[in-house]
Amino acid sequence: MWTYETFIDWKAGKTGEVRAEGKPSFAVATPPEFGGPKNNWTPEDLLAAAVGSCIMTSTLFFAERAKISMRSYKSKAVATMEKTPKGLAITTITVAITVGLHDAAQSDAMRKAVAQAENNCPVSASLNGQVELGLTLE
Amino acid sequence: MWTYETFIDWKAGKTGEVRAEGKPSFAVATPPEFGGPKNNWTPEDLLAAAVGSCIMTSTLFFAERAKISMRSYKSKAVATMEKTPKGLAITTITVAITVGLHDAAQSDAMRKAVAQAENNCPVSASLNGQVELGLTLE
Repeated sequence: MWTYETFIDWKAGKTGEVRAEGKPSFAVATPPEFGGPKNNWTPEDLLAAAVGSCIMTSTLFFAERAKISMRSYKSKAVATMEKTPKGLAITTITVAITVGLHDAAQSDAMRKAVAQAENNCPVSASLNGQVELGLTLE
Repeated sequence: MWTYETFIDWKAGKTGEVRAEGKPSFAVATPPEFGGPKNNWTPEDLLAAAVGSCIMTSTLFFAERAKISMRSYKSKAVATMEKTPKGLAITTITVAITVGLHDAAQSDAMRKAVAQAENNCPVSASLNGQVELGLTLE
């Protein structure tokens, strides 16, 4: 069992500061479309980033285990929030991944590593919404 | 329908940079207990922060609607990750909230606002794990 501790202090208006010991703090706020200020991380952004980063760290794990030599890894994670019968909910998170390989012969192994990451990412496993992955090799 | 876009660029080792347009970037990495470096935000931290900040922004919304005058709001959000039959998953997120009120007569209204936040936080609504809230008034 592992635990991950984070803290929030409300500052003013619709903005707070999120902290974790030894890690850089940053502001978090209600999204602008619900009355918050612009240019702050929002709870919905953080959920998208949690999934996107979990897929990255899981992919790095499986790629390393398969001895895949990656040149680059980029992803875009988009959370979609909708009105549902039970209220607002994040119903889908799409993660579009672009990986550069040193050796195109490792393409199939790379696809397998991403599929393994999708099945083993602990953040995705905790969501009841859909996580949709796409992979582009270059 | 609303969408929230975030990006990750893998940098080196088990670390990447997470970005969102107009917002401060920060490093994200595999947790130290799984081979990552210390002092970086991890996917599990981000999930805890997503829930903690969603409860804060939802509470601010319902407190404002009930004309509650808050002096302070702090919270600690802890994600617990465990091995499950389906692999690693975040099974529980506890959010311990401490609110300072200007007028103790608003205590019951404040408890109600937090209960409404719990039922209406769109991030909690997307999780299949348990979100457990605690509230201390001071």
